[in-house]
Amino acid sequence: MSEKIPVLVHPPLGLFELQLGDYDVVHWPTARTDMRVAITIGHVGITNAMIDALPHLGCIVCFGVGVDGIDLGYARQRGIAITHGREINHEDVADVAMGHIIATARMFSLGERTLREGKWTPPLAVPPQRRLRGMKLGIVGFGAIGQAIAARAIGFGLEIRWFGPREKPDVAFGYEPDLLKLADWADVLAVAARGDQTGLISAEVIKALGPQGTLVNISRGNVIDEDALIAALKSGALGAAGLDVFQEEPTPPARWADVPNCTLTPHLGGGTREALYAGSQNVLGNLRAFLAGAPLLTPLASRTGQ
Amino acid sequence: MSEKIPVLVHPPLGLFELQLGDYDVVHWPTARTDMRVAITIGHVGITNAMIDALPHLGCIVCFGVGVDGIDLGYARQRGIAITHGREINHEDVADVAMGHIIATARMFSLGERTLREGKWTPPLAVPPQRRLRGMKLGIVGFGAIGQAIAARAIGFGLEIRWFGPREKPDVAFGYEPDLLKLADWADVLAVAARGDQTGLISAEVIKALGPQGTLVNISRGNVIDEDALIAALKSGALGAAGLDVFQEEPTPPARWADVPNCTLTPHLGGGTREALYAGSQNVLGNLRAFLAGAPLLTPLASRTGQ
Repeated sequence: MSEKIPVLVHPPLGLFELQLGDYDVVHWPTARTDMRVAITIGHVGITNAMIDALPHLGCIVCFGVGVDGIDLGYARQRGIAITHGREINHEDVADVAMGHIIATARMFSLGERTLREGKWTPPLAVPPQRRLRGMKLGIVGFGAIGQAIAARAIGFGLEIRWFGPREKPDVAFGYEPDLLKLADWADVLAVAARGDQTGLISAEVIKALGPQGTLVNISRGNVIDEDALIAALKSGALGAAGLDVFQEEPTPPARWADVPNCTLTPHLGGGTREALYAGSQNVLGNLRAFLAGAPLLTPLASRTGQ
Repeated sequence: MSEKIPVLVHPPLGLFELQLGDYDVVHWPTARTDMRVAITIGHVGITNAMIDALPHLGCIVCFGVGVDGIDLGYARQRGIAITHGREINHEDVADVAMGHIIATARMFSLGERTLREGKWTPPLAVPPQRRLRGMKLGIVGFGAIGQAIAARAIGFGLEIRWFGPREKPDVAFGYEPDLLKLADWADVLAVAARGDQTGLISAEVIKALGPQGTLVNISRGNVIDEDALIAALKSGALGAAGLDVFQEEPTPPARWADVPNCTLTPHLGGGTREALYAGSQNVLGNLRAFLAGAPLLTPLASRTGQ
């Protein structure tokens, strides 16, 4: 009897596990402790308690680009390698960001709701829509996703500046080292920052964006102070929001029932069939490489920031 | 007493009429017959019966680019000049088209409805979204709007071909003289044709687009065989539709209640505040020019086709 190598899969990954037929798939919790490798989704992750329970764990393979469910310092200290799905779905996420920029400026959600309720909003009567050309777009986080948003936005005539922890060479768009200044300048602030920057978009940043401003988030929900965001939309201190990610997912719909001027999508960002397929192949490739002692395909780089 | 010059405004144009304080605004029906000029919205227009009742009518000033509510041959025969709002909102309309392309591929409408109903669709469980990069976009009508759609779509990595009555010089995208072939080739067919081409997107074209295809219309509702479109969406013969314009406007919501995979917006296309302002200025400019006997700012060109 040839014994299959055990692989922890957390959370269970449904149809994807059909591709793990060569391995012994183990779900958490379990009494088994011999797993050398774990597969996870970044925002769920592998807790330190799980790491402590698995003395042979040497590698955590993450599906997407995010690794925010993992205590990276602790994993490093325990000598555990981490891989992620780098640059597999950044263009898909940028497409959703651009979709939210259009949908908020041009009132897609309100328009569709109004139409389906049997009230038609003729062009001269709707609340005035904003023209995209000439609008000022501030991009927070200028990694692969942020840059892909900029590449799309220029075709619509948006003026672009960006914020990140440090300036980058060879970037055609203006760098703004002060996030508050960027928010104050921008008509739309699109958040593409790394998911570990909890509260980066604070009440103060939202206030600087202002009553005519729109906040778009395709990063992680925790990057925005969501309570402050909701309060600002309700009071009119913020103009509009387009959100693909939430503090808690699923987000309770009652939380948004009486919040005006927001377009909400259920974390669709990276979920194209093409990205899911490429992501699966990348997970399998990293898994095989680790178990074979070969170089990992897409190891997590040391923090370089976006 | 200085008498104001009478101007027929049909339909009544609400707040815009505040800008006509120098004129005597007349609404239809009326017993007055001395109006030399009429202001209208292209898809409402001035009927031949109205033209017959106004022997002094010399000019019809249309707000938008469309003139489909006017019998152009009859107006020409009667020596009536026509002006329209050429290239005032073509980029705004193209923005809405691109919004519909993203919203249908990435399931914005279904996603938002599902989220707001309290069901969350995690990325691995939603019906598979389509990646934009590599998708084939067929643009029907390659005037100002069609070209503006192409200029946006290239930033998303869409492959582009276009159909129109004749090839154009200096166009960087491939011309396809056969509409059925374009529909068969395309993943998305974006309709930006002139509004007078009723039924151009026939049941046969919709069938050629097929079960994986998406139809986006920002032109005029009558350009599409809407009954055939609805039947195709219901049967699965067509994959999805993003519609900003309808056969009848307002469109009865019951008509769409059980039609799957469609994103509907209430003719938002050209309705930005910037376009409405520029359009108002253009209407006033044409009105003044006509009454002063000066050259019209934006007379309707003879049919050149898109």
